[in-house]
Amino acid sequence: MIDHEHFIRQTLKLARKGIGKTATNPLVGAILVKVENGEGRIIAKGYHTGYGKPHAEVEVIRRAKRMGVTDFSNAILYVNLEPCCHHGKTPPCTDLIIQEKIPHVVFGTPDPFKAVSGKGAAQLTAAGIKVEYGFLENVCIEVNKIFFKHIRTQLPWVTLKFAQSLDGKIATASGDSKWISCESSRRYVHQLRTEYDAVLVGAQTVIKDNPQLNVRLTKGRDPKRIIVDGRLRIPLTANVISDKKASNTIILTAKNSNRKKIDQLRKKGVHVYEFPANKFKIDLKAALKKILKEEKIASIFAEGGSLMHGELLKSKLADDVIVFIAPKIIGSGIPSVTGELTKTIGKAVKLKLSSVKPIDADIVIQARIVP
Amino acid sequence: MIDHEHFIRQTLKLARKGIGKTATNPLVGAILVKVENGEGRIIAKGYHTGYGKPHAEVEVIRRAKRMGVTDFSNAILYVNLEPCCHHGKTPPCTDLIIQEKIPHVVFGTPDPFKAVSGKGAAQLTAAGIKVEYGFLENVCIEVNKIFFKHIRTQLPWVTLKFAQSLDGKIATASGDSKWISCESSRRYVHQLRTEYDAVLVGAQTVIKDNPQLNVRLTKGRDPKRIIVDGRLRIPLTANVISDKKASNTIILTAKNSNRKKIDQLRKKGVHVYEFPANKFKIDLKAALKKILKEEKIASIFAEGGSLMHGELLKSKLADDVIVFIAPKIIGSGIPSVTGELTKTIGKAVKLKLSSVKPIDADIVIQARIVP
Repeated sequence: MIDHEHFIRQTLKLARKGIGKTATNPLVGAILVKVENGEGRIIAKGYHTGYGKPHAEVEVIRRAKRMGVTDFSNAILYVNLEPCCHHGKTPPCTDLIIQEKIPHVVFGTPDPFKAVSGKGAAQLTAAGIKVEYGFLENVCIEVNKIFFKHIRTQLPWVTLKFAQSLDGKIATASGDSKWISCESSRRYVHQLRTEYDAVLVGAQTVIKDNPQLNVRLTKGRDPKRIIVDGRLRIPLTANVISDKKASNTIILTAKNSNRKKIDQLRKKGVHVYEFPANKFKIDLKAALKKILKEEKIASIFAEGGSLMHGELLKSKLADDVIVFIAPKIIGSGIPSVTGELTKTIGKAVKLKLSSVKPIDADIVIQARIVP
Repeated sequence: MIDHEHFIRQTLKLARKGIGKTATNPLVGAILVKVENGEGRIIAKGYHTGYGKPHAEVEVIRRAKRMGVTDFSNAILYVNLEPCCHHGKTPPCTDLIIQEKIPHVVFGTPDPFKAVSGKGAAQLTAAGIKVEYGFLENVCIEVNKIFFKHIRTQLPWVTLKFAQSLDGKIATASGDSKWISCESSRRYVHQLRTEYDAVLVGAQTVIKDNPQLNVRLTKGRDPKRIIVDGRLRIPLTANVISDKKASNTIILTAKNSNRKKIDQLRKKGVHVYEFPANKFKIDLKAALKKILKEEKIASIFAEGGSLMHGELLKSKLADDVIVFIAPKIIGSGIPSVTGELTKTIGKAVKLKLSSVKPIDADIVIQARIVP
């Protein structure tokens, strides 16, 4: 008996190599396994390396061929997600699988897109290919939580990040915030920036801290930078506008903002989007939908400030939180989240803890927001 | 070779049985071990069961005798703390050890009281007894941290406790706080109440929440209840004053408080102490010294509110913190600690984490305040 779950687990490992590169495509890994005497031996591995690049199924077949394999008659193709059957940036993977006469396909979970879900499997079955699926399905969905979210809701995945003292403050009353968390925590934050399509902060954070919002403490690509700035208060001298990567910066502002400033920002390469607003509070849901579509931002790492976190929670746009807790007590200061979210404890935002880990002197807590 | 550390570890286990009962005495365990062919066999165990009761050394010798042991000529007496050599509530243990002709005494750590430290050992040595010490010394000091603190500083050990949301709030903006933490956390808090000599809260907490501050969710003795109430605002109808255990309640107020109200409180059995105050903020250090001396309160479990925690931290009277973090986000609300403790992050109160553990849905973090 071949252990399908074992090989699906391997495809997930491969899939994760694409983290931060494939949006708005999913993370997909594929493995070709040769079956001899009831035992499976991996002959090739592949994964989706980036948006617009070949799918994992194409990659793994190409690699097998490069190694001289031409006969797939006793092979199984493993893939964490149902093979596609539609023409997108690349031709359908189902066609290729049929063409290469692979007799057996095992995948983890069906495509989340209702109109497509099951159709890839059906096409393969119709071509006489043995198809099995539903292995480690929850893990497969978890690895592609960003993809599942935006396919189902047309909204990006949003993670709130804050670094606070044990008593929940992100700065002293006078505004000092450097540094609450330890260097290892800050390095990990930069690592996370490489994994998300964009970081997001409120204008106040830019005005106060003038952050660069790029990746310096580790290797990896810079994320795009989203500034929510209803009143367009951001100074043209801010790092995110005046540095070399201004074209990485996206400003979300209220409709009918200062036209001249918008032009100045655009001249610097900044992408400015305008949205309906209520007292300069822009419609965040519309904004995130728009930048998912226009900027291919399927995952957002929201780094504050406390009002911004409050707004994202109030709008029910946040999916999870990652909190760095430093072994310090600040007392009166700026709390990590502000904004009236609830009048009673019973109606507070509920979380489900995913992990609690030490990171040098700090503790890092990850939790999913319970919808 | 006999493993002294092994037996000292056993004495600590015994010592801990006295938690919550021995103040202002230390926690002490003792073991008598018979040595035969180089191997040690425990013949009796004893511990200090409560203030005014026999010392652990007396207990263990009595028990050995009760089991028919009369000859201690090849015995070792193990005890976590240096045997006393002075007349207190009970006669000196060194006299008894000499009288019983125990030839060998091993203890963990010398007495912290400078005037006594080493004198017990010296008396035993002078009587021809072999004395060894300095085994698991740090653990011995840790187990008796309360005793070491008050002997060295004439101040009780103070633990700050708060139950907060992940974003550091102990209540919503409208004041709702029931319940932030889960039932298991609350039961653990009641367990801790049995272990401390007293719980302490500010008057505001009594006025707002009218807590009972006793032990209901688990078995064990009620702690004394200290209310810090500079202006003597506490209503006579408060649970802590009108319930059957009013004599368990201690009120710390400002000098020259409402004389009539003090009399009313005293008539109900409440212990009222007056202290110098600055704008009704009483001198907390003087107050804690006083109640250590008068009420034998060597350990205090401070349960809030946020201003009270701030005051204790500002006065450098807090020794450690235990924080229950619930998987919730409250946003705007009442923070766990208020009061200006620092203008800069660099000068925030520093902590050293002792433990981070899950407790049902919550996380409980214990940390020592770095002086």
